[in-house]
Amino acid sequence: MNIVELIKKKREGEALTNDEIKFLIDQFTHSNIPDYQFSALLMAILLRGMSAAETSALTDSMLNSGKSINLSSLRGYKIDKHSTGGVGDKTSLIIAPIVASVGINVPMISGRGLGHTGGTLDKLESIPGFKTDLSLSESIKILKKCGSVLIGQTKEIAPADKLIYALRDVTATVESIPLITASIMSKKLAEGIDGLVLDIKTGNGAFMKSRKDSIALADSLIQTAKKFNKRVIAFISDMNQPLGNYIGNWLEVYESVEILKGNIKNDLYKLSLKLAGAMIYLGKKASSIEKGEKIARKQIENGKGFSKFLEIVELQSGNIDYINNTHMYPRAKYSMKIHSTKSGFIQEMNTYHIGMASLELGAGRRKKDDKIDHKAGIVFYKKIGDPVKKEEIFCELYSDSRTKINTAKELIIESIQFSKTKPKIPKLIKKVIH
Amino acid sequence: MNIVELIKKKREGEALTNDEIKFLIDQFTHSNIPDYQFSALLMAILLRGMSAAETSALTDSMLNSGKSINLSSLRGYKIDKHSTGGVGDKTSLIIAPIVASVGINVPMISGRGLGHTGGTLDKLESIPGFKTDLSLSESIKILKKCGSVLIGQTKEIAPADKLIYALRDVTATVESIPLITASIMSKKLAEGIDGLVLDIKTGNGAFMKSRKDSIALADSLIQTAKKFNKRVIAFISDMNQPLGNYIGNWLEVYESVEILKGNIKNDLYKLSLKLAGAMIYLGKKASSIEKGEKIARKQIENGKGFSKFLEIVELQSGNIDYINNTHMYPRAKYSMKIHSTKSGFIQEMNTYHIGMASLELGAGRRKKDDKIDHKAGIVFYKKIGDPVKKEEIFCELYSDSRTKINTAKELIIESIQFSKTKPKIPKLIKKVIH
Repeated sequence: MNIVELIKKKREGEALTNDEIKFLIDQFTHSNIPDYQFSALLMAILLRGMSAAETSALTDSMLNSGKSINLSSLRGYKIDKHSTGGVGDKTSLIIAPIVASVGINVPMISGRGLGHTGGTLDKLESIPGFKTDLSLSESIKILKKCGSVLIGQTKEIAPADKLIYALRDVTATVESIPLITASIMSKKLAEGIDGLVLDIKTGNGAFMKSRKDSIALADSLIQTAKKFNKRVIAFISDMNQPLGNYIGNWLEVYESVEILKGNIKNDLYKLSLKLAGAMIYLGKKASSIEKGEKIARKQIENGKGFSKFLEIVELQSGNIDYINNTHMYPRAKYSMKIHSTKSGFIQEMNTYHIGMASLELGAGRRKKDDKIDHKAGIVFYKKIGDPVKKEEIFCELYSDSRTKINTAKELIIESIQFSKTKPKIPKLIKKVIH
Repeated sequence: MNIVELIKKKREGEALTNDEIKFLIDQFTHSNIPDYQFSALLMAILLRGMSAAETSALTDSMLNSGKSINLSSLRGYKIDKHSTGGVGDKTSLIIAPIVASVGINVPMISGRGLGHTGGTLDKLESIPGFKTDLSLSESIKILKKCGSVLIGQTKEIAPADKLIYALRDVTATVESIPLITASIMSKKLAEGIDGLVLDIKTGNGAFMKSRKDSIALADSLIQTAKKFNKRVIAFISDMNQPLGNYIGNWLEVYESVEILKGNIKNDLYKLSLKLAGAMIYLGKKASSIEKGEKIARKQIENGKGFSKFLEIVELQSGNIDYINNTHMYPRAKYSMKIHSTKSGFIQEMNTYHIGMASLELGAGRRKKDDKIDHKAGIVFYKKIGDPVKKEEIFCELYSDSRTKINTAKELIIESIQFSKTKPKIPKLIKKVIH
């Protein structure tokens, strides 16, 4: 096969065959196709698209570029959740222990934060001692013991995805539905799962800004999952404001713990119950999503979700003293309360800029090797639709740097729009697709 | 400026500004943009297109990546011709001396053959001793002496084009009208010309297979030339059969010499007169293309075109004995006459495959560093519309390898379609655009 002819074929909008896709991925993974040819192909794919059959073949080739986790020795179903990411999105930390606590296996491979969004691994690592870089065999041991493990992508899993993603990142070829689909699904399928719940974020803090694109991505992911005989449910959920009230790594662990303890019942709580409910349904411990949701709520009320979280943290070498006594955790050097200059309602939140303000405070990364300050972040006391009096505190910032707090403050003030009358609150869950 | 943002902008179909285009070309030429980013940009340009303003800015940036030839000290107009290339297309060898013989300067920078098409430089180098790799100062000296010089692209001229073309060649981004336009025009403008005649080939042996694409390319080239205040005339000419009867480097020099001597009056003769006529008109030595054509015909009849050719060959160190006595030239070891198996007319010629058969015989290159056998090639005694009797010889092959001749024979036989009734002959000049 001739690589230039294959690029030309895709460029002309023709469908590549399974063998052609396999050839391209194999050769690229083994460095037999140079980056400059592969990036031209990626741009052709982004602009010309791929059929469902091509997307499945791409997923399959990327999956087979590495190893899969063999979970056949495990009792019970293996169900995972994937979110396309946003600001304050910490549902994994809440869901994994709840679902594991009802006897479903949750083998969760997560990522790190980059740009305006945080990453589950960074959040977990804010717990002193917590290890996410476990080997596959260590991970399976923990999974067998407690029903869940939260790790990073290992070298063995979908190496093609790592190579391709690095190239997409620098060639403006990230925003392609078939490429996003294959990237997500190749990693998720490598986890050896039976079913998958998808949380596709839409809105001004999401990668998919429009509802139409979000639904198209959900459809593509569902079609691909079904081709691999996996049970799947997709939620299109709101990202026009941060999810929950806490942004920043330790701050998000804190909010998750409070939810698991039953002390917070905000939008994050509601979405977590919905996602956990769907996982419990896919794992055949409930006959509907709603019944699954009820079970999830019960696991918070009876403390079993929180106990499971402690178990996971302990098995992954985290210090549970900080989870049991969150006040022991070190505080950022500086904090700044932000007062409203007006009286009215919060009307709009530019979630992307809020994410960038959090990064500015030290909670995120601009480049892959930037260091993170786990204590840094933002707490919102008010969200869209909440009434705010003049001089009332609606937000608080945390950082070890006074300069950074001042910069972030400006960003935050620009990000929030106030209105005199109560605005429409964005619907949390916009669509459920089976 | 951020390269990823610029790729994204073009990917979304937006127009790049002059400054953005200049930045991209400058940075790429100085190796500050890696190939893998530039190839993604090239694919985005191919699929999203460029406006006339963008194409001019691209041409300008590529032109300014190197030096231009300063021909201001020359008396008379400087006019060149560019052909998009085809099989048996050797008009440069005929036109340059004719036009120079009427007192117009013809500074011609040509290319080498690759794939199914030949290159003017390879043809000229089949003349023993002929040098095409002259420095700019040597070239200007010759141009001043005799009114024409035929050289290859030097390092000083449009280095950006060399780098970009090498990348386009291996990333399936050759067939883009704005990229082709900027590549041609940046080199032609660097010649310091006042006017340009374009010969855009269309048909089964051309890069542009369809009439529509050929006209679009002609329009783009004309618009760009006019932005740089150059006089320009474009011909859309036929490439559904080889031009002339001889294919292969020395064989094409031979046919050119015979035309300059007034011994051959075929389609190649007709097209050469037309192109030369247009150059003479642009060079203000005639008041119309038709009157220019008459002058060109006269320069063949009075022997001045041929004398000028001898002068050019001699100044470029070629041995004119072979031009004066073409029978002295060494012959290929083997030749094979091809007989028709049917009686009727030649209906169709697959010109691309004929070009590939010539390459197979040794006259062309598959890769840039392949060696060429100057003696190898094909002579067609019959072309489309000509009657052929059963057993009549319609073609003859030349090569130093018996195996190659046999392979080429099969290719040739497959390339020719016969019909019982006389077919329509493709029109030689399909359109003239000012």
